[in-house]
Order: sequence, then C-alpha cells, then structure tokens
Amino acid sequence: MEQPSIILRTVCPDRPGLVSQLTSWISNCGGNIKHSDHHTDQDAGLFLSRIEWSKSDLLINKAEINKEFEKIAIDINGQFNINYSDEIPNVGIFVSKQNHCLIDLLWRVRNGELKMKVPLIISNHPDLEDIAKDFDAKFFYINTSNRSKPNVEKQILTLLKDFDIELVVLAKYMQILSDSFLKNCSSIINIHHSFLPAFKGAQPYHRAWKRGVKLIGATAHYVTEDLDEGPIIEQCTVNVSHRDEVADLIRKGRDIERIALARAVRLHLNHQIFVYDSKTAVFD
Amino acid sequence: MEQPSIILRTVCPDRPGLVSQLTSWISNCGGNIKHSDHHTDQDAGLFLSRIEWSKSDLLINKAEINKEFEKIAIDINGQFNINYSDEIPNVGIFVSKQNHCLIDLLWRVRNGELKMKVPLIISNHPDLEDIAKDFDAKFFYINTSNRSKPNVEKQILTLLKDFDIELVVLAKYMQILSDSFLKNCSSIINIHHSFLPAFKGAQPYHRAWKRGVKLIGATAHYVTEDLDEGPIIEQCTVNVSHRDEVADLIRKGRDIERIALARAVRLHLNHQIFVYDSKTAVFD
Amino acid sequence: MEQPSIILRTVCPDRPGLVSQLTSWISNCGGNIKHSDHHTDQDAGLFLSRIEWSKSDLLINKAEINKEFEKIAIDINGQFNINYSDEIPNVGIFVSKQNHCLIDLLWRVRNGELKMKVPLIISNHPDLEDIAKDFDAKFFYINTSNRSKPNVEKQILTLLKDFDIELVVLAKYMQILSDSFLKNCSSIINIHHSFLPAFKGAQPYHRAWKRGVKLIGATAHYVTEDLDEGPIIEQCTVNVSHRDEVADLIRKGRDIERIALARAVRLHLNHQIFVYDSKTAVFD
Amino acid sequence: MEQPSIILRTVCPDRPGLVSQLTSWISNCGGNIKHSDHHTDQDAGLFLSRIEWSKSDLLINKAEINKEFEKIAIDINGQFNINYSDEIPNVGIFVSKQNHCLIDLLWRVRNGELKMKVPLIISNHPDLEDIAKDFDAKFFYINTSNRSKPNVEKQILTLLKDFDIELVVLAKYMQILSDSFLKNCSSIINIHHSFLPAFKGAQPYHRAWKRGVKLIGATAHYVTEDLDEGPIIEQCTVNVSHRDEVADLIRKGRDIERIALARAVRLHLNHQIFVYDSKTAVFD
Repeated sequence: MEQPSIILRTVCPDRPGLVSQLTSWISNCGGNIKHSDHHTDQDAGLFLSRIEWSKSDLLINKAEINKEFEKIAIDINGQFNINYSDEIPNVGIFVSKQNHCLIDLLWRVRNGELKMKVPLIISNHPDLEDIAKDFDAKFFYINTSNRSKPNVEKQILTLLKDFDIELVVLAKYMQILSDSFLKNCSSIINIHHSFLPAFKGAQPYHRAWKRGVKLIGATAHYVTEDLDEGPIIEQCTVNVSHRDEVADLIRKGRDIERIALARAVRLHLNHQIFVYDSKTAVFD
Repeated sequence: MEQPSIILRTVCPDRPGLVSQLTSWISNCGGNIKHSDHHTDQDAGLFLSRIEWSKSDLLINKAEINKEFEKIAIDINGQFNINYSDEIPNVGIFVSKQNHCLIDLLWRVRNGELKMKVPLIISNHPDLEDIAKDFDAKFFYINTSNRSKPNVEKQILTLLKDFDIELVVLAKYMQILSDSFLKNCSSIINIHHSFLPAFKGAQPYHRAWKRGVKLIGATAHYVTEDLDEGPIIEQCTVNVSHRDEVADLIRKGRDIERIALARAVRLHLNHQIFVYDSKTAVFD
Repeated sequence: MEQPSIILRTVCPDRPGLVSQLTSWISNCGGNIKHSDHHTDQDAGLFLSRIEWSKSDLLINKAEINKEFEKIAIDINGQFNINYSDEIPNVGIFVSKQNHCLIDLLWRVRNGELKMKVPLIISNHPDLEDIAKDFDAKFFYINTSNRSKPNVEKQILTLLKDFDIELVVLAKYMQILSDSFLKNCSSIINIHHSFLPAFKGAQPYHRAWKRGVKLIGATAHYVTEDLDEGPIIEQCTVNVSHRDEVADLIRKGRDIERIALARAVRLHLNHQIFVYDSKTAVFD
Repeated sequence: MEQPSIILRTVCPDRPGLVSQLTSWISNCGGNIKHSDHHTDQDAGLFLSRIEWSKSDLLINKAEINKEFEKIAIDINGQFNINYSDEIPNVGIFVSKQNHCLIDLLWRVRNGELKMKVPLIISNHPDLEDIAKDFDAKFFYINTSNRSKPNVEKQILTLLKDFDIELVVLAKYMQILSDSFLKNCSSIINIHHSFLPAFKGAQPYHRAWKRGVKLIGATAHYVTEDLDEGPIIEQCTVNVSHRDEVADLIRKGRDIERIALARAVRLHLNHQIFVYDSKTAVFD
C-alpha cells in the first residue's frame, strides 16, 4: 500500500534560510521529499515553495501536520496550503451546448488521467444531458432566459454546496457569472477560445478570422471579477491560414481548447499552481 | 542557363472558368506551369490566383507579356502583378539600436536565402553603422530628436528614391512613420514583438510579463496608417513561464522576431502574398 | 439545396499545358472551380493536381463525368480519382484495449467533423464493446490468441466486405497484419506512437524515455507491407523532460496520437492525399 | 556591485533529508538561495539537486567553500560541482564550411546572451576565417585531407590546451572525432541535423526528404564515443511538406539548428544540465 503524497505550498516574503527551514521541518517529521521546487519572484520580493513529500510510517495525522506547520507559517509570515494526493475532490462542470471539453474531461477522469470526481454538471441548455448520464453525473438544466440572474445563481450555489464541489470548471459555459457569485464560489477554471489578452469577450474566432491572424489560441485561466482578465494557467496555439473559414477556426480551436483546459485542470488538481498578483506560477 | 520564372498574381471577382482562362493564356504563350495555386474567398466573392511559370524559348519580352495579360485583366475585371525571379529588388532596412533582426536579414541575404540587395540602412541611432559596413551597405544616421518629423521623413524619402528602394523593412525601428510618409513609400514590412492583436503599442514584453501570459509572440506585418493594425504576414510564439523575467522574454523574443521577420520578407520577395481587406493570403 | 463538390485528383508525367487542359475540360462541363492546387515533383517528373469543383445545374451524371475524363487521362498518360463530397464512406476501426483514439474519432464523426460512417469496430480484446454500443457500431471481438492468423484475417476480410468498408483505421490496434491481408484490403491508416522513422516497432515510449529524448511524437501513416515504413500523412510532437516518467510519456502521447490520427483521417476523407514513391503529398 | 551566484549541483543516492542537509549548509554559510530545484529519479534511485545561491558578505573564499562541501559529499556519497556566475569560460568552436551556427553563437556572445569567450575557432576548411577575424577569435585551418587523423587531433588537443578551452562546440563540424580524442577533451556539444534517434549519421535531410517525413528536427547533444548517441540536451522541429525540396529542408533546418545549439550551449554555461545514464536532466 503506497502512502499518499503530502503537497506543501508556501508563499512568504523572501529571506535567507527559507528552504532550509521548510525542509528541516519535513525532515524532522520523518518525511521524504519526492519533488521540491522553489522560486523567488525578485520583483515582488516573494518566495514560493512547493514540496511534495511522503512519510514512511503508516499513519498520517493530518490535523497535527497542519497545526505544526502553522507555527512555521507565522514565523515566516507566510501563507500555505497542505494537500494530500489521496484526497479526490468533487468537481462541478458547467456547460452550454458544445460538448467537446466536457467529453474530453470526463474521458480523462475515467482513464485515470485527472484525479477528480464529477458528480455534478450544470447547463443553461438541455442538450448534453445524455453525456452526463453516460458518466454517472447528475445533470441540472437551469434555464437562464426566463429567470433573473440572482435567482439562477442562488440555485447554482445551493447545488455546489449540496454536492460538496471544490472546483468549478467552465467547459464552454457561455454565461457570465456575477461578482457576488464569484465571491461565494470556490476556484473556477474557464477556457477562453483565444490567446488572451487578444480577443477578449465575445466571438473571438470570428474576430480572429476578420483580423487575419496566422495563429489562433486557447487560454485556460482562473475566473475573476474582470472578465477574461483572470490569472492565466495554460495557453495553446495552432496555425491557421487564409484557406480556413471561421468554421475551420472553430474546428481547429476545439482541439487546443480541450488540451489547454485539461492541462490546467490537471495542474490545479496536482496543486502545482500558485496565484498572486493576478498571475500564476505553475510548477511543472 | 535556366530561364527565370514568371510569377503571375491575379485577383478578380469569382466566376466559373477563371483558372482555365488564365492557364490557357499561359499555355498559348508557350509557358510551362511550375506551381499554381488558386483560392476563392467565398466571403468576399474574390478569386485569387498565383501561377509560377517559365518559357522554354530563350527570349522573354516582358513588356509584351504585360500588355497581353492586360487584355485578360480587363475582361475579368481583375488586378494583377507580373514578377520575374531574376529581378532582385533593392531593400532598405530601418533600425534603431537592436541588431538581431538586421544581422539576421543580412546573413540570409549573403547565404542566398533572401533574394534581395540591401544598399541602404537607415537608423535614428548611430550604433549599428559597423554592421552596415561589414555588409557593404550605406548607413545613414538620421537624428530624429533634434529635427521635425516632416523634415526627417523628407530626407528618408529622398534616400529611398536615390537608392531605388522597392521594399522597406523595419527591423526593430522604434519610430512611428507618419501617414504622409506611408502614402509616399513602397511596401513596408514591420516586426512587432507580440502576437498581435495582443499588446499593440509600446513595451509589449513588459506588458506580457505583467499579464502573466504563458506564451509570447512576434508578428510580421505590412505597415498601414493604423499602428500595429496592418495585414499580418507571419506569427511565431514561444513558451514562457513564471521563471522568465522581462529580460528573458526579450531574449526569447529575439529568436522568434528574427524568424517571423525573415519568413515574411522571403514570402514577399517570392511574391507569395496577396493583400486585401486588411488581411493577407499567403500562398506557400 | 447545395450541390456536392466534385474532387478530381490527377497524377501524370509533367508537361506544359496540363493545368489548362484539365481546367478547360471542367469549364466545358459547366463546372466552377472552388479550390485548385497543382504541384510538380521535379525529382520524379510528375505533375499532381487536385481540383475541387461544382456544377450549377441540378443533375450530375457521375458515370458520364468519369467516362469523359477517361479520355483525357489516356491523352496525358495519367491516373485519376474522382470523388464526390456527398459520398460518405463506411470506415472500419480496429482497436485493442486503449480507447482514446477510438472515442476521439467517434466523437468527431458525431460532431460532423469527419464525414464518414463507422458501422464496424473490430478488436482482439473485448474491452471496448460498450463504446461501440454508445455509437451504434457493431463490435466484433476476435480472439487472436487461440486461432491462426490466416483464420482471423479471413474472418476480418469477410466482415470488411459485409459492411462495405472502404477505409480501415487502426486506432491503437496492437496486431500486425499479414501481407496477404493488406493485398486484399482497401486503404488502411495507422497511428504509430513515435515520430517515425525514430522508434519503429514495439514500445516506442519506453525506448524514447530510455534514450532521453526531449520531444516525443506520433505519426499517422498508410499501412504497407513494411512495418512502420508506410507513407507518412501527419506527424505531431510534444515536449518532454527528465521529470516525465514513461507513464507521463504515454499520457502526453495520447493527445498527439489522437490529433495526428484525426487529421490524417480527415485529409483522407477529403481526398487531399496523393501517395506515390512511398511518400504522400498532402494538399491542405 | 552584485555578488556572483554560486551554483551547486549534487547527485547522490536518494534518501530522506537530503534537501534539508544541503540547504542547511548553505544557510549556515550565510547564503541566500535564489533558485533551487531538486529531482528524484525513482528508476535510478538517484537524487539530483541544483541550488543557485549568493552570499551577502563581500568575500567568497572559493577554495574553502569547496573544501567545506566535500565533507557533505562524502557523507551523502555524492558527486558535486560548484560553479560561479562570474567565471566566464573559454569555448572553442569547430566548424567546416557552413557559417550559420558559428555566426549565431558569436552574435549571442557579443549581445551578452551567452556568457562565454571564444578565443579559438578550428576548421577543416579555410572558408570562415573572416568571421573569426570579425569577432577577434584566432582561426586555425587544419587540413584533414592530407594528414593522419591522430596527427590532426594531436594538433587540436594542443590548441585546446594552449587556449585553455573548457568547452568545445561543434557548430556544423563535419568530421568524426576519435575515441582517444574524446577521452582527452573536455565537454563537447554537437548539433545534429535531425530529431535523433531518427536519421543518425550522414545526410539526414536527404534521407528525411526521401522518407517523406512531415517534420524535420535538430538535436543538440553531448558527444560520446558512440556517434550520434550522446546525451540529448535540446531538440527542435519544424514542419515540412511535399512542396519542400531537399534545399528547403536544409534552409528550414538552419533555423532550428541555430536555436537548438544556442539553447544547449546556454544551458551548459548556466550549469543547468546533469548527465547520467547516457541522458540529461535539464533544470530550466
């Protein structure tokens, strides 16, 4: 029986001795470091550390580990997260009519590539209910056209709570979420179909085609109150030419949307992402 | 002795029989088609054709070929260009302080990769004069800080005329050209250090770094009156991460700037580009 | 009601006047050329032409078009194919245990991205039967371990005939087909999990990992009697590093396998591929 | 005045507590860690660590640092290298007739991108002497056709010693070096014009063209006794099509050769590469 990995992420003001302090503590815990990556953002004066370690003894007292590290966090004036590789989070996926990102994510879950459960799929269209059934997820069609946004979002927040959702993935969900919703929601990852910051907002493929770009992109990012301005996690591009119509851009774009979103979700699930200053540091 | 290729580019309203009409004419001229590529822009209702052909007989009467084809152009209500592979144009390169694009272009000319002559290099800084000397080009340092823009541009236009320049390449020329200059100048290709339309204007690498993008780009485009809005010819990208400082973006960017610019210039020299509707069709 | 496109592919010895001859014939047929691309392989002395055209009148007499063009083919000593965009071929997919390429292809068919029908899925393992059901394809599990290869292949050939299969796609089918099978079978496209010709044969990811390559690849190719030596249609690569274990190479590889295979199948279905001299010319 | 960085690379059998042990030592030295990256090769049971750190006090006693760390190395049964960012090594570049990699490297040195000096250029052809002059390097034309290989290599080894060369870069040097030469020489980086292990040996572009590949590559690697089998540092690829002749492959290849080689040399100079088991781990 393999022991779970313990993933410690720490952010604090930079100063000498930090790596030593963190790793000594792990060593004293009887831990063995599997991966360890540290970065100093000179500009921000911040130290970022991700250490993945395991314990050889059979019992891990999670509460105690947390309590112990809190002391260090206070000392270094830092923020931290401790996660465990055996904790498989519940993820809610929001969709509209397009199915490619949804199917791709669910397929990767089934194949063991993404360590998450998907008990809940929410859509403002009824089209993708069958896919939810195929993958044993509850599907909630919430018609947004005949109800007020606050009402709709209240229902969604209740569902997220009921299903104990820790991460929301917007897999081509063509609705804008309100600031108040975002404040009440856990992490949200979105896929935008352009290489942000180019073509923010609606119809990026149409505008890319009109502009005559020679490559199109897809950007996976955390959702914040500023639309399409959230911290970027992953970006992919693909070449296009004058022979490509808008429909070809949409078709080619689906492949990079799927891949960018899946990579971003995987990085999030593996606790490889730090968010600060409206940016991410991705430790891969 | 190899005969030069004749490159015929035609744009006209789409209708049946155009390829047949063009190629029959070439066939009647005793021509042999080496490459031929046609594209219909359904949206614009336009037919685009590029045919590269040669004649087996020794003499090519260029004036006559032109005159002959003009009749067809009138019939199809089209515009056309006829170029010859043995005509090597004079190209003027404008630079400021950075040398990488200049050296790269000159090196490719020397190695026979770019079929052009570079008799003239213009700069608003004196730094790169030695490079010009190494490659036997005249270097004109035109101080733009102590003179009016109209004065400066008048001098430049005179130089372009004196040196019989057919194409201007802005190889990291950090000055904005006025509308009146552009009206009086032949084709101008610029390299912008971002994947346009993202990060138009000044300091794209700094802004890309601040935005936390995961890839940076370079865009070679024709210069028009709207800054950074000209028809895009070529775009390249390279991955970056949180470990890259602005200086690293600048360093990595140099490689894709060089490549995007060189490719664009080559496509232009080979008469592979059509420009219309603020876009390019690149027949490669 | 849109008229179907007619796709004419011609290969013949190069000589002057060929494009004119082909397009005049189309013009005389009352055809309108939508796309047209011609290439001369100087080395082989061959002319390759692909013309996609349509007729404005309602009736297309396919037999007559074929008969008419045969005369030209004889005159130019050429080989040709005429296909119609409204003819949707039956495709048989062969799989073993891995599902990613199969699901990807079927999803693209359902979304209208690949114009083909998949009535038949054959496997040497029973694992993927459910997927076949989901997509309304017949699934035949043919145990290859307890029967002779000739027997197995005879059964497969009968199935291909019964289901009127025009193209076979090996979507991670981990069996080698005999020469006699290949002789009796229509076109076969395979996906090999390396950038051929590197890592021909078994376990390419393991060998790539051992060799310490910095990128891995996937190659879609037509199957010929020489294993992994068939004409290459499409190749994709993805970066890897020392942090990637063999399992990571396999995971990353799945994404490029899916994309390379889907692109190759699409190019085949659109009749964009010429095969000659153990190579392909892909007119995209 | 900025203090130089100290780069400590360590390889040893994996065991708990190693990161803590290394970083505690640095902390005790009064060091401040700038970058730190650790990797465990589970398969080989090896721990790899690269720590870049600086000291705030003005004096660094290099001999003492080395002596101090040796004690730890013995304790952990490890091998280590300590380098300093202010030590600029002498690099010898070997060329034949092609100039693109040579010019590219020298340009990057001049621009401060590669922290090295190039006092010595050796060639088996006289062609590139002028470039050496332009960049103030001594150029030795060593005719290999009229002398025995042992004689030639003896002369080269003497030159390497005389010029105090720490790294040799084969920038399109079209000669094979003997095993005895390699034994007597410091690190050697070569650029091979294929995505190894495909197209080992002579004329890779010609063979790639004949095979009909859809991408070509370039591989920078350390040179070992097995030709083209040395540890791979960096690989780049570029797309090609049936429209590309061998000459186009060579042209396109030059761009990726330059970039792959420059990246590899930079990684070496920054002490970011570990070599073991005929592979590299590149900490970037």
